[in-house]
Amino acid sequence: MDAVLKSLAHVLEQRKQGDPKESYVASLYARGPEAILKKIGEEATELVMAGLGDDDEAVVHETADLWFHTLVLLARRGLGPEQVLAELERRFGRSGIEEKAARG
Amino acid sequence: MDAVLKSLAHVLEQRKQGDPKESYVASLYARGPEAILKKIGEEATELVMAGLGDDDEAVVHETADLWFHTLVLLARRGLGPEQVLAELERRFGRSGIEEKAARG
Amino acid sequence: MDAVLKSLAHVLEQRKQGDPKESYVASLYARGPEAILKKIGEEATELVMAGLGDDDEAVVHETADLWFHTLVLLARRGLGPEQVLAELERRFGRSGIEEKAARG
Amino acid sequence: MDAVLKSLAHVLEQRKQGDPKESYVASLYARGPEAILKKIGEEATELVMAGLGDDDEAVVHETADLWFHTLVLLARRGLGPEQVLAELERRFGRSGIEEKAARG
Repeated sequence: MDAVLKSLAHVLEQRKQGDPKESYVASLYARGPEAILKKIGEEATELVMAGLGDDDEAVVHETADLWFHTLVLLARRGLGPEQVLAELERRFGRSGIEEKAARG
Repeated sequence: MDAVLKSLAHVLEQRKQGDPKESYVASLYARGPEAILKKIGEEATELVMAGLGDDDEAVVHETADLWFHTLVLLARRGLGPEQVLAELERRFGRSGIEEKAARG
Repeated sequence: MDAVLKSLAHVLEQRKQGDPKESYVASLYARGPEAILKKIGEEATELVMAGLGDDDEAVVHETADLWFHTLVLLARRGLGPEQVLAELERRFGRSGIEEKAARG
Repeated sequence: MDAVLKSLAHVLEQRKQGDPKESYVASLYARGPEAILKKIGEEATELVMAGLGDDDEAVVHETADLWFHTLVLLARRGLGPEQVLAELERRFGRSGIEEKAARG
């Protein structure tokens, strides 16, 4: 899996020099964080709707859309998937999950 | 990065035999898809709020929460991060991103 | 206030005979509940973002957008603001609010 | 309908002097705008889920929850339903709706 997130992060970094008229990601960067956050809200809503249905492909599709836009948000701030994965590792290792059960 | 998503998916799979009273994930499984989707909506809202602020750690934190709950949703359906990453690879490789720019 | 919601509900009812190419509401009806629900998710996200800022007009603007799209959702199902107001009255009268405090 | 929104706004105003331990609304005020906005995100997600189903009562219930929390948001800023209704009137009168169709 590693390669996918890493190369996607690399592409997102390159798009910072892209032309907003030609690159969707460059257009998101240009429109600012609110445009990206609006997309995150939209994709989350679409995932919620897909998640009530039977179509596994739609769920995967919407999850990919949602992850993608979170990666754009991170990239714009100079962050990337490595920080998210480090946080997931820190908090949701075996013991971490049970800890959250206790407080959640 | 690979190892984190893979081991998290493994833990989520194991939690299917967990006790909802002791495991947060097992309790989400037990409460059904609507409970998981509700969490996804909540975490997306929290990410949108964090994304307007200056706190990078909060953005990473909320993204991790959001990804985590999408992984719980996937796991409950017998899916995992490998499908999401395959979809990201398929659609958001270098050419894929520009294709989306054209239609999006 | 009465007149506004009542006449808006009336307009939304009339739009059921409208041309989706000429009327925004008719186009929402034609595109089905998922399109309307997607708009509700979008408008809620925009309200959350406005709600973190200082611009009262933006908050009012986004709230109006959100209420409007919920009214479209209701109208499509043959429902209207009168049911929402009756529910608010039932649940959030003086005693109702405190009851929710107890359980919420 | 008028009376419901007006008296609800009045109750929300009174709750500003309420005890957060005894009043749900007072507790929302005390926890600040982010808590209220988080509830708006939650209620919007619940409405989206209800909107995909067949239960009209659930749709009305979730719409009422959503409107209620937007009214709490407004009240905290010294605003109320009258501004939302004025905005709806301004923008979504018969001509206003068609205008939005043109640009939307």
